[in-house]
Amino acid sequence: MNRAIVLLSGGLDSTTCLAIAKSKGYEIYALSFDYGQKHFIELRLAKYNAKFFKTVEHKIVKLDRNFFKNSALTNREISVKKDNYSETDIPNTYVPARNTVFLSYALAYAETVNSGHIFIGVNIIDYSGYPDCRQEFIKSFEKLANLALKETVEGKMRIKIETPLLFKTKSEIIKIGKKLGIDYSKTISCYDPTDGKACGHCDSCLLRKKGFGESGFADETIYV
Amino acid sequence: MNRAIVLLSGGLDSTTCLAIAKSKGYEIYALSFDYGQKHFIELRLAKYNAKFFKTVEHKIVKLDRNFFKNSALTNREISVKKDNYSETDIPNTYVPARNTVFLSYALAYAETVNSGHIFIGVNIIDYSGYPDCRQEFIKSFEKLANLALKETVEGKMRIKIETPLLFKTKSEIIKIGKKLGIDYSKTISCYDPTDGKACGHCDSCLLRKKGFGESGFADETIYV
Repeated sequence: MNRAIVLLSGGLDSTTCLAIAKSKGYEIYALSFDYGQKHFIELRLAKYNAKFFKTVEHKIVKLDRNFFKNSALTNREISVKKDNYSETDIPNTYVPARNTVFLSYALAYAETVNSGHIFIGVNIIDYSGYPDCRQEFIKSFEKLANLALKETVEGKMRIKIETPLLFKTKSEIIKIGKKLGIDYSKTISCYDPTDGKACGHCDSCLLRKKGFGESGFADETIYV
Repeated sequence: MNRAIVLLSGGLDSTTCLAIAKSKGYEIYALSFDYGQKHFIELRLAKYNAKFFKTVEHKIVKLDRNFFKNSALTNREISVKKDNYSETDIPNTYVPARNTVFLSYALAYAETVNSGHIFIGVNIIDYSGYPDCRQEFIKSFEKLANLALKETVEGKMRIKIETPLLFKTKSEIIKIGKKLGIDYSKTISCYDPTDGKACGHCDSCLLRKKGFGESGFADETIYV
C-alpha cells in the first residue's frame, strides 16, 4: 500500500510536506478545507501545487462557516495581530480544535481510499504556539486513529501520522522544499492577505521572512 | 462550570442522552449534523427534543455531502440491509470515522462555549459493531481532547466524554428515557425511513423493536 493523504493548506509547510511525500514515492490524495478563512487565496495555490506535484486526487472539503467564526482567521471583525510575535502566547488566529477536525476528515479519507499514511505539516520550532501542532497531540491522534476505523480494528490497515517537519526550522523547511522543486511564490503563509499578496506583518509572515533570511534563498513571497 | 455539549442525532439513544444530561442539571448545548443522511427526518425530531428539553442552543452543522457519500446511510445507490442483523459484521451503514468527526466538532464547540462535558449516546450492548462506539475509542478521544485545546493545555479546563448509555441495553435505555419524560414517537432510529416513518426491518429498527419488547413499554415507533 503506497498511498498517502496530505493535508494541504497551500502554505509553505504543507506544500513542502506534499513535496516530501511525493519524493518518497507515494500516490498522493491531497485534502484542503474551505472554512471561510480570510486567506482563501491559499486554496487556489493548494490547487496549483496539487497539480504541480501530480496528486491522484485533490479534495477541497467545505466546512460550515457559521461554526468556525470565532477566530481572527475567519472573523472579519477580529483583526490579525501585526508586528508583535510572541513565543509563548496562543494568538487570536487560533481556531478551536482545528487540527483535530482536519485530521478526522483525513482519517475518513484514508479509510475510503485505503491509505495508511496521513501527512501533516506541523512543526514545533518557529511555530505559533498552537496546542494541536505538538508531537504529543499527534501521537495521541495516531492512537485514536487505530481504534477508530473498521479497517484498523479488523487489523487490515494501520494509520501512521507522518510529520516530516516536526523538528525543522522554517529555514530548514525552505531548503528541503527548494531541493524538491517548490516555487514558494506559489504558496502563501499570510493570515491576512490583500488581493492574494502577503501583509508581511502577521505572525506567519514574520516567521516566513525570518526563515527565508536564514535559508540563504531569496524570499519569493509576494508582498503587498 | 455546568455546561454540556450533547451530540443529538434525533434517535433513541442520543435523545435519552439529552434527557439524562438535562436531569443532571447541565445547561445544554446540543449539536446535530446534516451530512446528507437518508434519514434526515431525524434532524426535525432532534430540533423538537432540543426545544422540549430546553437546551440553551442547538447547532446543526452542515457537513460536505460529497465527502460522506460512500455509506448505505448516505448513498441512495447502496441499499440498507433488511431483516438480517449480525452481531459480528460491521454493516454497510458504517460511515468512516463518523464519530471521530462528530466528536471533533463537539470539541471545538466545547471550547467555544466553555463546556467541559461532551455527552455521546454510544453503547456496546445491542449495537451494530461500529469501531467508534467502543469504550476504548471514547477513552482515547478523551485523552486527545485534553491535549488538543488551548484551554485544556493551559489547565483551565478538562474535557470529559460522558457515555451514560455505554453498558446499557436498549430496553434499559428506554426505561430510563420513559422515566425522564421522553416521547419516543418523537425520535427515529430507522436507517431507511419513508415519509418520516420507520421501515421496521433495518438493523436499527430490529434493535429498537427488541428493546421495546423487553422494556414492558408499548413500542411508540411510527412504522410505515
